[in-house]
Parts: sequence; C-alpha cells; structure tokens
Amino acid sequence: MEAGGLSDPGRGAIRAVTARLRPEVIRPRVRLGEQVLIGPGKIALLRAVAEHGSISAAARAQGMGYKRAWSLLDELQRSFPVPILQTAAGGSKGGGTAITAAGQALLDHYDELERACRAAAAPVLDKIGRLLAR
Amino acid sequence: MEAGGLSDPGRGAIRAVTARLRPEVIRPRVRLGEQVLIGPGKIALLRAVAEHGSISAAARAQGMGYKRAWSLLDELQRSFPVPILQTAAGGSKGGGTAITAAGQALLDHYDELERACRAAAAPVLDKIGRLLAR
Repeated sequence: MEAGGLSDPGRGAIRAVTARLRPEVIRPRVRLGEQVLIGPGKIALLRAVAEHGSISAAARAQGMGYKRAWSLLDELQRSFPVPILQTAAGGSKGGGTAITAAGQALLDHYDELERACRAAAAPVLDKIGRLLAR
Repeated sequence: MEAGGLSDPGRGAIRAVTARLRPEVIRPRVRLGEQVLIGPGKIALLRAVAEHGSISAAARAQGMGYKRAWSLLDELQRSFPVPILQTAAGGSKGGGTAITAAGQALLDHYDELERACRAAAAPVLDKIGRLLAR
C-alpha cells in the first residue's frame, strides 16, 4: 500500500474554519515565466511608501530592514519603463520618497485586480469549502 | 535623495514581453491565515498521481523526490475530511495510488477557480500591461 501512511483526513478543525477561507484566498501575482514581477509583498511595501513618505519609514512599518525594502522596490522599478517613485531633495526633514502617478496607477490596478479575482473566485470557493467541510 | 540609487526604469526588454504576461498571471492559492492549503504545486502533484497511478511515478514526473511528494500530498490530505487518494492492494504491479472522487472534485474545482480568476483578471492585466509598456 504505497500511500498507506497518509494521515487520516482531519475532520474536526477544518470544518469550523471553512467560512474563514475566502478573505485570504486570492493574492494575485503577475508573473513572467517564473519571475514574480508584481506581488502582494511588493505592493504592500509600495503602498507603505505612499503612506509614510519614505522608504525607511515604509520598511519599519512592514517590519523589514531598509536594505531589503530598497531591494524589493528596486526590483519592482526595473519592470517599469517610467519611475514609480520619486525622491524629494533633502530639506529640513532630510528628503524622502513619494510615489509617482505611475506608482499610484499600479496600486490602483492591483486593487482592482484583487477585487476582480476575489469576486470571480467566490462561487468556486464555496464549492471547495463544501469539499473541505463535508 | 533617499532612493537616489534606484535603477533606471528598464524601457527595453519589458515592452516586448508585455503580451506574454497574461498566461502566467494567476495561480490561485487557497490560504487559511498564512498557511497555503491548496496551491498550484500540490494540485500539479495530485494531477500527476491521477495520471500516473502512483505517488512515485508522480514524483518523478514532477521532478521531486518521493518523500517530498508524499509530504506535500499528506499536507493536502490533512485539509480534507474525506480521502483524496486511495491505495490499491499490491498485486503483480506492487499496488499504486489513485485519486478518489473527492480528489477529482478538488482538481475540477481548482481548474474552475483558475479559469474564473484568469477571465476576471484579463481586463485589469491589460491596464497593467499598458503601464509596463508605455
């Protein structure tokens, strides 16, 4: 019996939990081959830059180091032919980073992508939920 | 200038490639919190079991070791209250593993989920494609 040791189906915890599946289900990624060009992590970081006005504050808000944040944003920028971020000349506050109109358009399109996918997925997730719960 | 070193926007290669974005874009994952219950890797493996009739053949087809394949299928099974795989008693061919009706339903639902998400995403991806290409 090749799969003889596979765990017994877990009847208990999952049933209670099926109703909570939907909100987490779709976090779109735009891929090119195996490379993720645009995904939920980079988008959250870009949104944090827009909110906080600097990469360092956005990194703190996302619980990551500055170098990691900078590297992710740099990756994201490389996919776009126009700047998605702009740096402010350092005045009394030492400059900062804002997003451009193209960066804001990216955030808006990603939100729309997420909403569209979630709406389309909902009826199918109901079916999968019934499979998990029966 | 906090982000002064960010790479220049990459105007060349991406433009040619925008048209290829869509087919790869949506690979749905069903999450519960941070845990991925159902994702494209496990589904591909389950489909390979259905095609090849054994976990070991499915593992080979997916380019992974038997232990890794078994572990992924075991994780997937733990989310379901009914068996998604069944083992055959070992006759001359040494037994094997087939998928159950519930396993087949999972594959069908996942296909439907993928189709639904891709259809919903298409018009938004056109917008993102224009952002990548302009």
